[in-house]
Amino acid sequence: MSRKAAGPEIEELIALLGRMPGLGPRSARRAALHLIKKREQLMRPLAAAMAEAAEKIVACAECGNLDTISPCTICQDARRDASLICVVEEIGDLWALERAGVISGHYHVLGGTLSPLDGIGPDDLTIGKLVERARQPGVTEVLLAFNATIEGQSTAHYISAELENAGITISRLAHGVPVGGELDYLDEGTLAAAIKSRRPL
Amino acid sequence: MSRKAAGPEIEELIALLGRMPGLGPRSARRAALHLIKKREQLMRPLAAAMAEAAEKIVACAECGNLDTISPCTICQDARRDASLICVVEEIGDLWALERAGVISGHYHVLGGTLSPLDGIGPDDLTIGKLVERARQPGVTEVLLAFNATIEGQSTAHYISAELENAGITISRLAHGVPVGGELDYLDEGTLAAAIKSRRPL
Repeated sequence: MSRKAAGPEIEELIALLGRMPGLGPRSARRAALHLIKKREQLMRPLAAAMAEAAEKIVACAECGNLDTISPCTICQDARRDASLICVVEEIGDLWALERAGVISGHYHVLGGTLSPLDGIGPDDLTIGKLVERARQPGVTEVLLAFNATIEGQSTAHYISAELENAGITISRLAHGVPVGGELDYLDEGTLAAAIKSRRPL
Repeated sequence: MSRKAAGPEIEELIALLGRMPGLGPRSARRAALHLIKKREQLMRPLAAAMAEAAEKIVACAECGNLDTISPCTICQDARRDASLICVVEEIGDLWALERAGVISGHYHVLGGTLSPLDGIGPDDLTIGKLVERARQPGVTEVLLAFNATIEGQSTAHYISAELENAGITISRLAHGVPVGGELDYLDEGTLAAAIKSRRPL
């Protein structure tokens, strides 16, 4: 005689919350209870923020970033260095680099990595658009800021071959010891890379 | 030169998501990206469900359950056994018992447990209302379905003393081996309780 614990409105809320990444059925129920308890401080503002984002947010036609305008704020920013395009796999990577404030140039969101086994080829990513942007006058460097994974590295190889004749510098992120990292906990590949790329003090 | 990664609409969404239980700053960003990607399938329906819940959900004046009506669906259900009141600490516990479909009677949500160190006394819980309900004609049993914690047990003792002269049965949940549980992993207290309350086969 299993019954629904709450009314259809709450069940619907729990079901939708459970489809968010990081929330399972149990934590979705806890989240729903929390939202109902914090109705004015959290549930109403969050509902409004979601509705507004659903209405306003668009993908930048130039770089693929998310913003309320297209081209996005970054692409339109004249103070940014138009000679550098930093290519990332996903928008989350763009956000991470922006938080660090380490990229003075523009971005290009690829939308993933090449993955023949999953049927993801060059046409499923924005590689064509990247090649087009990289050939525009004024662009001198394309920095491939991909994850240090097999997929990231093979995608980087593919793109660097595509851009071989563009007459621009293709660069990648350095490998090495993470700042604050302890040698004892690092894998051999990272240690080997850090030794190989050692710098004079 | 740390900058905001995204526009103010997305930042607001991330900040609000980060205040949900189970989502930290990093997972809030991932959740925001996921919502934007699943705009029509998830973000709009979730925003609508939250707005609707914020508008409609009320606490039942009788038992404290959450519903769109007060008294709630359970309190109004004539097929339920009005002689039994099952007292729980929180609404999440009520939901758990309803999912299991094991309570034929009504509920009473206490709103927490007595905790003198945190300044939570009887007047901060719905104990007065419970005593009033328990003395209504037709009520024969109050089942204290509290967590098997110090706080739950001391609250149960306090309530059973309050109801001592009401002429009704006060019961608590059985202790023992959880169904599917392995003895090897159980604590001594549970094993002792399971032995003490052993039943003939």
